[in-house]
Amino acid sequence: MGKIKLTPRQEEIIILVKENPPITSERLANKLGVTRAALRPDLAILTMTGILDARPKVGYIYSKKPSYSLVYDYIRNIKVKDIMSKPIMTTEETMVYDAILHLFLNDVGTLFIHNNGNLVGAVSRKDFLKMAMGGTDIHKVPVGIIMTRMPNIVLVEKEDSIYLAAQKIIEHEVDSLPVVERKFESGKEIFQIIGKISKTNITRLFVKMGENG
Amino acid sequence: MGKIKLTPRQEEIIILVKENPPITSERLANKLGVTRAALRPDLAILTMTGILDARPKVGYIYSKKPSYSLVYDYIRNIKVKDIMSKPIMTTEETMVYDAILHLFLNDVGTLFIHNNGNLVGAVSRKDFLKMAMGGTDIHKVPVGIIMTRMPNIVLVEKEDSIYLAAQKIIEHEVDSLPVVERKFESGKEIFQIIGKISKTNITRLFVKMGENG
Repeated sequence: MGKIKLTPRQEEIIILVKENPPITSERLANKLGVTRAALRPDLAILTMTGILDARPKVGYIYSKKPSYSLVYDYIRNIKVKDIMSKPIMTTEETMVYDAILHLFLNDVGTLFIHNNGNLVGAVSRKDFLKMAMGGTDIHKVPVGIIMTRMPNIVLVEKEDSIYLAAQKIIEHEVDSLPVVERKFESGKEIFQIIGKISKTNITRLFVKMGENG
Repeated sequence: MGKIKLTPRQEEIIILVKENPPITSERLANKLGVTRAALRPDLAILTMTGILDARPKVGYIYSKKPSYSLVYDYIRNIKVKDIMSKPIMTTEETMVYDAILHLFLNDVGTLFIHNNGNLVGAVSRKDFLKMAMGGTDIHKVPVGIIMTRMPNIVLVEKEDSIYLAAQKIIEHEVDSLPVVERKFESGKEIFQIIGKISKTNITRLFVKMGENG
C-alpha cells in the first residue's frame, strides 16, 4: 500500500491554490505557463484524492481532508476480530469485593459474567461504584445481584465491522462490548464470549491510523 | 469535498485486477485492447488513491485500504478544540461522597479539580472505587486527599492535534485529558481548564469518520 507521492508540479499547484483560493484552472494554467489540457490529469488526481476541492464555476480550493469515501472504506473494512482483546470474566456467584479486585488486577473497566463460557451478564466500574456508595456490604453480595443481565447487553460478533462496534458503544453509552459467537444448544440460543471491544481498542486503532504509514 | 468518481474503464481495471492478482500492466492492456501508455493515467490514479497496490516486477493487486497518508493527514488535521467537550470540575475541599455524586450526575468518568478555574488535580472512577474499597468514610475525606496532583497530570492544549491527544491517552493509560490554556501569573505558570478530551470523544469522531460522507 503506497503513500501518495505527488509530482513537483502537483505540489506547485497545491501551493498556488492555497495562496489564491478559489482559483480557476485557467488562472492556474496561466500561472504555471502550461495549457489547461496539460493540467487536467494533475487536477484530476488532486481532486480525486480529496486534496483539492473543485467548486463548479468558482474554482479550486484546498481541502485538508481526504475524500470521505476513502476513510469510510478503510474504517468499514476493519473487523472486530482484527482488534478485539481478551475478555476478563467471572461467574455470578463471585462476591462484589472479589470481582472488583479482579477488575483492578486486570486493569479493565468491565467484567463479563459467564456460565460455562457463555455470556449471562456484565458489570462495570460505574455499577460497582454505585453499589459501594449505597453502603451495602460488598463482601456479602454476589456480582449476580448487581450485574446487567442478558438479553439487556449490547454485543457484537467477530465478523462485524469495527465501525458498527464503535457506533453501538456511542449509541448505548457503554465502555465495552462483549464479542460473542452465537450457537444453538438443545434449541436455545447461547452466546459464547470470545473477546471484547472497548473505547480503548478504538482509540488505539485511531492512533495506529494516524501513524506515519 | 468530492467522493471518488471512477471512470468506467477504471472500474473495469479494478475488476480485472481482483480476478487476476497479481496482473502486469501489459496483461491488463491486452485484456482491455488498449496500449500500456493509454492505461498509465488510470493506473496512476488507482495506485495513488490506494485502491490498487503496485508491486514492482510482480504486477497490480487490489488493496481495500486507502493510502495511509490520506487517513494520516485527515487525523492529524483535526484539532483538540474541534471536538473537545465541557470539563466537569470541583474543588479539592469537596467531600469524596459529593464528588462521586457530581460524577454520576454529569455521567462522566473523570472530575478535574480546580482552583479559580486552574487545574490542580484529577480524580477518576477508578480512584474513587479504590478508595471505596479501602473502607474509608467517603463523607469525611475531601477529594484533595485522593486526587492525582499537578504536575502529574497529562494534558493537551486546544491547538494540539487530536492524534496527539489519542496518543497520550493510550501511552499514559488514562480515560480523559484536560484541555488547558497556559498562562503566566506573577511569574508562575498556571493552567486554565477549558475543556476535556476522552476516549468517548475519539470513539465518537471515529464513528463520524465512518459515516457515509
